[in-house]
Amino acid sequence: MTDRLPDVLKNTKDRYRLFGSPAFRAMVYVEGLLLKGARKYFDDMEFKEIVVPHITKATGACENIDTLFGVDYFGEAGYLSQTAQLYLESLIPWMNKVWCISPSFRAEPKVDNRHLTEFTLVELEFAGTFEELLEHIEGITTSMIESVLKKMTSRWLDRNRLRRITPPFQRITYEETIEAFDREFGHDITREEEQLLVKKFGDLPLFITHYPKSMKFFNMIENRENPELVDSADLVLPFGGEAVGAASREYRPDRLYKRLTESQMLKQLEARGGSIEDFDWYINVYRKYATAPHAGCGIGLNRVTQFVLGVDDIRMCTAYPLNKETLL
Amino acid sequence: MTDRLPDVLKNTKDRYRLFGSPAFRAMVYVEGLLLKGARKYFDDMEFKEIVVPHITKATGACENIDTLFGVDYFGEAGYLSQTAQLYLESLIPWMNKVWCISPSFRAEPKVDNRHLTEFTLVELEFAGTFEELLEHIEGITTSMIESVLKKMTSRWLDRNRLRRITPPFQRITYEETIEAFDREFGHDITREEEQLLVKKFGDLPLFITHYPKSMKFFNMIENRENPELVDSADLVLPFGGEAVGAASREYRPDRLYKRLTESQMLKQLEARGGSIEDFDWYINVYRKYATAPHAGCGIGLNRVTQFVLGVDDIRMCTAYPLNKETLL
Repeated sequence: MTDRLPDVLKNTKDRYRLFGSPAFRAMVYVEGLLLKGARKYFDDMEFKEIVVPHITKATGACENIDTLFGVDYFGEAGYLSQTAQLYLESLIPWMNKVWCISPSFRAEPKVDNRHLTEFTLVELEFAGTFEELLEHIEGITTSMIESVLKKMTSRWLDRNRLRRITPPFQRITYEETIEAFDREFGHDITREEEQLLVKKFGDLPLFITHYPKSMKFFNMIENRENPELVDSADLVLPFGGEAVGAASREYRPDRLYKRLTESQMLKQLEARGGSIEDFDWYINVYRKYATAPHAGCGIGLNRVTQFVLGVDDIRMCTAYPLNKETLL
Repeated sequence: MTDRLPDVLKNTKDRYRLFGSPAFRAMVYVEGLLLKGARKYFDDMEFKEIVVPHITKATGACENIDTLFGVDYFGEAGYLSQTAQLYLESLIPWMNKVWCISPSFRAEPKVDNRHLTEFTLVELEFAGTFEELLEHIEGITTSMIESVLKKMTSRWLDRNRLRRITPPFQRITYEETIEAFDREFGHDITREEEQLLVKKFGDLPLFITHYPKSMKFFNMIENRENPELVDSADLVLPFGGEAVGAASREYRPDRLYKRLTESQMLKQLEARGGSIEDFDWYINVYRKYATAPHAGCGIGLNRVTQFVLGVDDIRMCTAYPLNKETLL
């Protein structure tokens, strides 16, 4: 019999009042063990760790430029990074398989059970195929969970539920999904729909693959058969929802540049006074060096923690949760 | 015979032009292996990992408030953290031994071989004594170096020099140091003096202990015999210079509060429009809970990398170095 994690862990203010709670301590321990399990996978698979910058130009942005925190960088416009993806990708031609675990920042004013302004992102990029990418995500997710199961028994941990998580994970395409819900192409699958799907698939992790190009990051590669789609995969988890965003990356410099110039992200950046010049170094990597097909993903640690602890509220899933109301 | 790392690695602009260089790749590999060695030590000694915030109030500051980067946090004043020390310390009563590895930010305008605006800090805090603290620093430093030696041979790595690094490290007090250089009490030991000392002690890591209270972070504990000194230790390395700052921490709430109110840091904070209220939660931890003697340290990863690679320039020691001139 597993206990529900007490609701008091949602409180972000006066966080220190929770420090004496065994439930808080269990949650913090889970968070650390999940990180350890991710790193074990990277070691086992011979990925190399890269130290990435966190004050960046727009190359640290992830889709929505409007949620970048600004930093006054000696009078120049800097941002707090949201993803290390481009900094990792750029090293693939020489390092082959790379990773980092780093804070990701979102200037997201919503105070609710889904949003933090800072959270931990586990990122990997490697030279390889879309199929290998999904296998890496299955492998790392399983390794994270095994790390918790190996070290920890707790009345807040449903070990039987977690033991059922084994590769391969089930898959559904974006097009199948909108068909199931009778939606138009371009519909952004809601959190409620995600959870309905997950339930239908046995309360297990589920990949939703091949989203419309227009809805995703500019460098996700076009699908060969249908160039309106990209070779992308979101991993949806019970409780946590979309925990992983993954894709094969465009690696041909001319196409990459074209996709960037056409992207919504660049329009947002320019509206904010920024410029495509921020991406010069990144595009130059592709122009200067012969790069090869590669892929990667970002795993939102706290959403995995939600899944492992079986809670609907992300604020219950990190030692020091930050949102608009809480800075400490 | 070991080669010198090529000077071209100092270039921070157009970093991508270095990505094809085997020397760059060796350096990046060393950086990752050092982190792995640090984590191995934490695992072996059963330290627990804590995920810490990086947008903070002044509790994320480290001595010099003037080098905090400001973040506009939805109209409120936030800072980019320089140390997770207080966030780690606060959990010691329940987690006992804790660690994190995180970016540390300094709004330091100097563009030279010694300063980056962002670097990686390895931090640990635990319930225990000053003597145990020095042993942990010896242990983790050795584990970091062993991790490199175990995985890597390279023409840029002087394995014979590194094999000589074994605990215990030599020690000298601050007072002995200023006597040796014929300086007044309160003199801030220069980088040149540090390197002269290190040379005198056989080009090996050297602890300089028991600095004047007035020169150090507000919560370093006063020395029992001489309350003008604190139980602190800086670890000075050949090439890297001061790589570790360490101390036993004040844990008695009234004394802690008094030290804070008297600190130079608080004066700087108030001059900048901030207030002691930022520290309320931290002081409250000590007021609310019985805390015990504890100690900890921060290890500047890049300075250890300098030592391992034998280079005088910190810009040569991370994949993406940032300074006032370089943001990418």
